[in-house]
Amino acid sequence: MIVVNTKAYKEGIGKNAVELARIMERVAENFKIDIAIAVQPSDIYMIASQTSIPVFSQHIDAINYGSHTGWILPHAIREAGAVGSLLNHSEHRMKIEDIAEAIKIAKNLGLKTIACASNVGITEAIACLSPDYVAIEPPELIGGDISVTKAKPSIVRDAVDAVKKINERVKVLCGAGIKDGNDVAKAVELGADGILVASGIVKAKDREKVLNEMAEAMK
Amino acid sequence: MIVVNTKAYKEGIGKNAVELARIMERVAENFKIDIAIAVQPSDIYMIASQTSIPVFSQHIDAINYGSHTGWILPHAIREAGAVGSLLNHSEHRMKIEDIAEAIKIAKNLGLKTIACASNVGITEAIACLSPDYVAIEPPELIGGDISVTKAKPSIVRDAVDAVKKINERVKVLCGAGIKDGNDVAKAVELGADGILVASGIVKAKDREKVLNEMAEAMK
Amino acid sequence: MIVVNTKAYKEGIGKNAVELARIMERVAENFKIDIAIAVQPSDIYMIASQTSIPVFSQHIDAINYGSHTGWILPHAIREAGAVGSLLNHSEHRMKIEDIAEAIKIAKNLGLKTIACASNVGITEAIACLSPDYVAIEPPELIGGDISVTKAKPSIVRDAVDAVKKINERVKVLCGAGIKDGNDVAKAVELGADGILVASGIVKAKDREKVLNEMAEAMK
Amino acid sequence: MIVVNTKAYKEGIGKNAVELARIMERVAENFKIDIAIAVQPSDIYMIASQTSIPVFSQHIDAINYGSHTGWILPHAIREAGAVGSLLNHSEHRMKIEDIAEAIKIAKNLGLKTIACASNVGITEAIACLSPDYVAIEPPELIGGDISVTKAKPSIVRDAVDAVKKINERVKVLCGAGIKDGNDVAKAVELGADGILVASGIVKAKDREKVLNEMAEAMK
Repeated sequence: MIVVNTKAYKEGIGKNAVELARIMERVAENFKIDIAIAVQPSDIYMIASQTSIPVFSQHIDAINYGSHTGWILPHAIREAGAVGSLLNHSEHRMKIEDIAEAIKIAKNLGLKTIACASNVGITEAIACLSPDYVAIEPPELIGGDISVTKAKPSIVRDAVDAVKKINERVKVLCGAGIKDGNDVAKAVELGADGILVASGIVKAKDREKVLNEMAEAMK
Repeated sequence: MIVVNTKAYKEGIGKNAVELARIMERVAENFKIDIAIAVQPSDIYMIASQTSIPVFSQHIDAINYGSHTGWILPHAIREAGAVGSLLNHSEHRMKIEDIAEAIKIAKNLGLKTIACASNVGITEAIACLSPDYVAIEPPELIGGDISVTKAKPSIVRDAVDAVKKINERVKVLCGAGIKDGNDVAKAVELGADGILVASGIVKAKDREKVLNEMAEAMK
Repeated sequence: MIVVNTKAYKEGIGKNAVELARIMERVAENFKIDIAIAVQPSDIYMIASQTSIPVFSQHIDAINYGSHTGWILPHAIREAGAVGSLLNHSEHRMKIEDIAEAIKIAKNLGLKTIACASNVGITEAIACLSPDYVAIEPPELIGGDISVTKAKPSIVRDAVDAVKKINERVKVLCGAGIKDGNDVAKAVELGADGILVASGIVKAKDREKVLNEMAEAMK
Repeated sequence: MIVVNTKAYKEGIGKNAVELARIMERVAENFKIDIAIAVQPSDIYMIASQTSIPVFSQHIDAINYGSHTGWILPHAIREAGAVGSLLNHSEHRMKIEDIAEAIKIAKNLGLKTIACASNVGITEAIACLSPDYVAIEPPELIGGDISVTKAKPSIVRDAVDAVKKINERVKVLCGAGIKDGNDVAKAVELGADGILVASGIVKAKDREKVLNEMAEAMK
């Protein structure tokens, strides 16, 4: 699986996000692979109702229906059309009890969770909480030019091994600095089930070309 | 102005929120008054594109375009159709520097801000930051059965006086426990420019009836 | 081990904390068991320099020397005489990356860590981060009259089993509602290496008597 | 007044903090001016019991006696010997309701408060909450080589004017990049009642010399 996180990038908001989702739709159909987009909550409905690719929220709070003004309700993003959410992204770290609770709430609602982790120990810890995916992203490489698969290949392999020992059903994504097909091929070779990518796609000059390369490497 | 905050109430999410917005639309047209809805970010687009009432986000973060995964981007809620946002709600208190920054960002984007405050001193402090509205809501009365206008009328009057002294352009809303037309009439009498209401409307048995009464009292 | 958390209780601050520490000192010597006190940072030096019992901070932040005004520096509590710190107490939940980092910093400084967890899954997750102790405390029982060992004995046993599977060197404490010797005996029987207790000691009428009973049960 | 914030600098922790406090003691006596030190909570008792200079905590939380494990209790830092606390430092921003509440609690306990603010609008807002001091520190200048009094003299003057209009009893400190006597003289000339300084003193090669110069300029 390829998950494209649009962050709060201008190129990944509103109409730009819909346009990006349409590119992703074409590539996903051509290569018959899963490509999902993780967007601002306010963009979920528009993308989910106009395209066929799976839409994730970039965050949900560990809350149920009730008096929680201004927090992101899992039930609300689901009704808007999301199929899941990122959790604990390096730009939005969460308390451990909230990660656990958010995963539980999401599971009850049939929402998928992708929980991020900055190193192998934390990847292992989060695997104990049974999200659908753990995404390992060394923070010092996020947004940079060298991919995690080049800079720290062992971290990806160790994360995969550690997670499998804890809970076989948890899948592993890797992220940080992923820029092209080679990075993706390497991730797969290291045992990852997919990648989490942001600027590498969203801010690429030719987004469809890069995505095609990555999808090709994923097959 | 009447601002209806749907919080994370089941009755105020997704299709339920759109239905509520349609009721508000009818009442607003009948009485020629301003009625706005403050919703989950994921509901903004659906309501803004299907109804004519002003839509507020329940929160925005003090961020601009960039690497801010999972935080609520003012630019994104605007593109989804919001005309403004609540800030510093008692269920989502903000750092003072973030309130100031969020107001500034909102202003640059043409978004209105309604900043909440729990007492007169804080109302005065927030008025210094020049939001469009300050909403005074004593937290101990929120969600309760006795309205702020009955329990603490002086707090509303003092807030109105304090704000006018600081910044004449800042309008004052009052909230907490507002349940019927009498509460609204009293709020207006005390000098408030409007009310911020949640369960009083969202969880009312006959929402249109209560809203009609409140609108009548507002005229 | 018995760890007494004085929270921000009047009975556990300043001179009162020293007095309590002296009681703990006597009991610890009589029964030859480990009894530690977890206090406000501002009380560490006074207790550590006037008594012989191990002093823990109630919290440390995941920081090193530098520009961190107002955060609790591990190096500072160590120099004041602390031998370790609680982490992630239910009244002070931490981000998972900060728990991991605080444990690492503490280890480098020779400080012991007691990381709290609200359920078995989180206990397991935290064990992956290799603190010296995990303390399982179901939040709904904290400060109450029924001890975790009576209300949820299986949670303690499951936590002990889960932790041993993850990392044999991590010890397990249990807490919440611990009031007397029976609760402690039961905790030991369930496999716990000790207890974390607050109001049960700090607010007891006869603190020495209760502590004697607990120490007796611990032997 | 000169307030020296030792942050979490190695040079301002434990014995180093006591040593610095002794230098401050000498300078304060020679020049008959007020010099206070703001330290880690765990260093308050040691400094307050071994020197005569006023000791501030770098932060207090907005809490009273009770179940608040790991938060900084105003009552505790007072009993340890502190005479007041910084609030809302740029490295530890606070929610506006917590600033207001912390000021109220401190006042009831006879503790002085120095609340920090990053710009003139926020300085004005905080003045509405009646701390004893507001310290204006543009964050972009903190820790840098150019003092606020050189880089943005108008911000100091405007802050002083704004505060006087709101509440005459609130005094104004200025900070950020203060390095020598000239910076201090300029601050006084611009109307400030004192300065808040950190690395300029704590990391100076000859701390007594710099402090002497600053004290001289303060007279």
